[in-house]
Amino acid sequence: MRKYYLRDSDITESSVAILLNRIDDNNQDVVSTVKQIIEDVKVRGDYALRDYTEKFDNVSLSDFKVTESEIKSAYNQMDSDFIDVLLEAKKNITEFHKHQIQNTWTKEFSPGVVLGQKVTPIPRVGLYVPGGKGGYPSTVLMDAIPALVAGVNSIALITPPAADGSINPYILAAAYIAGISEIYKVGGAQGIAALAYGTDSIKAVNKIVGPGNVYVATAKKLVFGKVDIDMIAGPSEICIIADKSSNASFIASDMLSQAEHDEMATSILISTDESLVERVTKQLQSQMQSLSRKDLISKSLESNALLCIVDTLENAIDLSNLIAPEHLEIMVEKPFDQLDKIINAGAIFLGNYSPEPVGDYFAGPNHTLPTSGTAKFSSPLGVYDFVKKSSIISYQKESLEIIKDKVMHFAEIEGFDAHANAIRRRFNHES
Amino acid sequence: MRKYYLRDSDITESSVAILLNRIDDNNQDVVSTVKQIIEDVKVRGDYALRDYTEKFDNVSLSDFKVTESEIKSAYNQMDSDFIDVLLEAKKNITEFHKHQIQNTWTKEFSPGVVLGQKVTPIPRVGLYVPGGKGGYPSTVLMDAIPALVAGVNSIALITPPAADGSINPYILAAAYIAGISEIYKVGGAQGIAALAYGTDSIKAVNKIVGPGNVYVATAKKLVFGKVDIDMIAGPSEICIIADKSSNASFIASDMLSQAEHDEMATSILISTDESLVERVTKQLQSQMQSLSRKDLISKSLESNALLCIVDTLENAIDLSNLIAPEHLEIMVEKPFDQLDKIINAGAIFLGNYSPEPVGDYFAGPNHTLPTSGTAKFSSPLGVYDFVKKSSIISYQKESLEIIKDKVMHFAEIEGFDAHANAIRRRFNHES
Repeated sequence: MRKYYLRDSDITESSVAILLNRIDDNNQDVVSTVKQIIEDVKVRGDYALRDYTEKFDNVSLSDFKVTESEIKSAYNQMDSDFIDVLLEAKKNITEFHKHQIQNTWTKEFSPGVVLGQKVTPIPRVGLYVPGGKGGYPSTVLMDAIPALVAGVNSIALITPPAADGSINPYILAAAYIAGISEIYKVGGAQGIAALAYGTDSIKAVNKIVGPGNVYVATAKKLVFGKVDIDMIAGPSEICIIADKSSNASFIASDMLSQAEHDEMATSILISTDESLVERVTKQLQSQMQSLSRKDLISKSLESNALLCIVDTLENAIDLSNLIAPEHLEIMVEKPFDQLDKIINAGAIFLGNYSPEPVGDYFAGPNHTLPTSGTAKFSSPLGVYDFVKKSSIISYQKESLEIIKDKVMHFAEIEGFDAHANAIRRRFNHES
Repeated sequence: MRKYYLRDSDITESSVAILLNRIDDNNQDVVSTVKQIIEDVKVRGDYALRDYTEKFDNVSLSDFKVTESEIKSAYNQMDSDFIDVLLEAKKNITEFHKHQIQNTWTKEFSPGVVLGQKVTPIPRVGLYVPGGKGGYPSTVLMDAIPALVAGVNSIALITPPAADGSINPYILAAAYIAGISEIYKVGGAQGIAALAYGTDSIKAVNKIVGPGNVYVATAKKLVFGKVDIDMIAGPSEICIIADKSSNASFIASDMLSQAEHDEMATSILISTDESLVERVTKQLQSQMQSLSRKDLISKSLESNALLCIVDTLENAIDLSNLIAPEHLEIMVEKPFDQLDKIINAGAIFLGNYSPEPVGDYFAGPNHTLPTSGTAKFSSPLGVYDFVKKSSIISYQKESLEIIKDKVMHFAEIEGFDAHANAIRRRFNHES
């Protein structure tokens, strides 16, 4: 855990780069392994999937598709309280994401000139859900629901099998509740390759979303272009802006919840109050003791936690904007007053009673968020990721005639006389 | 020029793949050259830019920035008619793109639960404009205006210099009219590297948009992740759906306008009427004779034009959806009746008097469109490419209390007890 006193002049892009040391990960060994896997799946299809599943997941499968009865039996073994939690989470996530729906529009911009934008769901989408300890039902809901709200009507979910050929029942139950029934027992780079290029078992998709390990992330990056991808997720991050009004116990608990993700997870506190930082440090030590992932948390805090003391709230916000954190908690006296000044953040949690976990599972906004500073240019996963637009252009003869000389002039300036010809022909059939 | 009679059963993804033979271009020589250039610019900054500019553009520059007087003098040498054309195009493009503006919203979803989405312009954006014969004023307007409408307040335009160190005056005049004043004389992979990583002369950006040659496209793909990119543009394409009501002369002129772009440009006609296809073929031959790029057009049509005769209009539309063309012209009797059925297309031109060039220059919608079938999952360049969203989450103590057990249940199911702890702490300060 490192502690810094940062003055106004320290708050620069280069000092943030040094403080955070976010990795520009391009491990060439991983890249070449993944390239080989992708090529192999392109050529050998299901045979390659079978071989890699045997190699990496230690199970020999004759059929990758999860059966309807497997899904139902997973659902039936859930306790009914948890089913209720999933149903309420689904409702909240659906309601929030409905606000992201965009509609097709057309408008007559001038007489005879109709322009517009057609919004169409992406035809077919693949969802990747990690297996093992990273296999979470919340991931299923957060990836599937925006696609369903967008109107995507063909969705394939892939997730690696356990060594006995089974799939985590929580994943299947969440898929059942979300309404996803096309599920395959395949993971890793081979799963991404199957989604991108298709095999006999798995029809190719147009876009792949979802988190995964470095092999999955590298495979997504390599198939980008053939299909679209959501984003390359880095380690999870929280940044908390706090002043003297903030509660040290709450702050510490939120930093700990971030740290339990993995060793690379980053918890950052930016405060104008040095004594608060001291209290948070103590709370971190005391609260940690009773947590089951204590060792992991301790390592994660040791390597990646950052305590920054700054002079003013403006400095705190400037620093946070340079960090562009995945999760930002604003725990100052009037948090909504700061909202306008937040330029870069994946999700913004306001006030003392909006801890990150409420967003991870339940509130409604997506938990798939831009990491590693990519909040400077990218957005939470949303309905907008599952639709695409087409421009609509319609002129009547009379309306084209009015502007024809201008369009031809522009085309001729650029040296495109066949473009000018296409306009001229409309008014000079004989030529 | 190939002609096919396609029956219903021929209209499949795999036959389209064979018919079009779109290239999955990953030339490893280009990739390794570009990787070296990017590394070099990362390490040596402006010194590397200077060396590559000397090597590739044959000019030794001491300063990359275009001066205000260079911009003004380019503007002043334009004839006033063309200035008027640029101004009217700017007005149309701006008005259309204003319809893509999205606003920040918040809503109280239940008592004490405020959720929402903050829409923020990307802080800094780089526009790439090709030089030489690919350096078009229309590209400047189409790339810059959506960024400006989105509210991006830091925009750098880069474009390669001529051997005398000058920049195409049309590009500078269009930039002046759009309102872009930060312009650098640097192109190629080295220019993309400078935008992504920054040098002493050029401050790094968060997103890079704009077309370019294979080196530029490869560099964009390699820096993706560090910065965002718009898309990797492939060869330009048009697909025309026509029935017996269509005008062969118009269709041919539109195919020719596509073919004059370059040898790789693809013109496709899908018609239910074989005699129309014959007439179009004759028109192509006769109209071609008077066009200045006749040789290029002839090569392009020879290699890439495709004439498809199908049984029904439904077949034509299914085929077009599988092709997912960059430009789609619907020249049938009631074109608007077909709009709902169009799933995949970059821009849709309806009727006989909506030729593609009107969209390339003037109508308002963007001319930067998804190519190579990527219209299945991506959109025209738009205001949405220059903003990003942040989720907003705010709970009051009482509203969090109502759901706290459910959130903790979810966290515990996923094995995250520090997440549960962060909720519990809010209601149990002593613990």
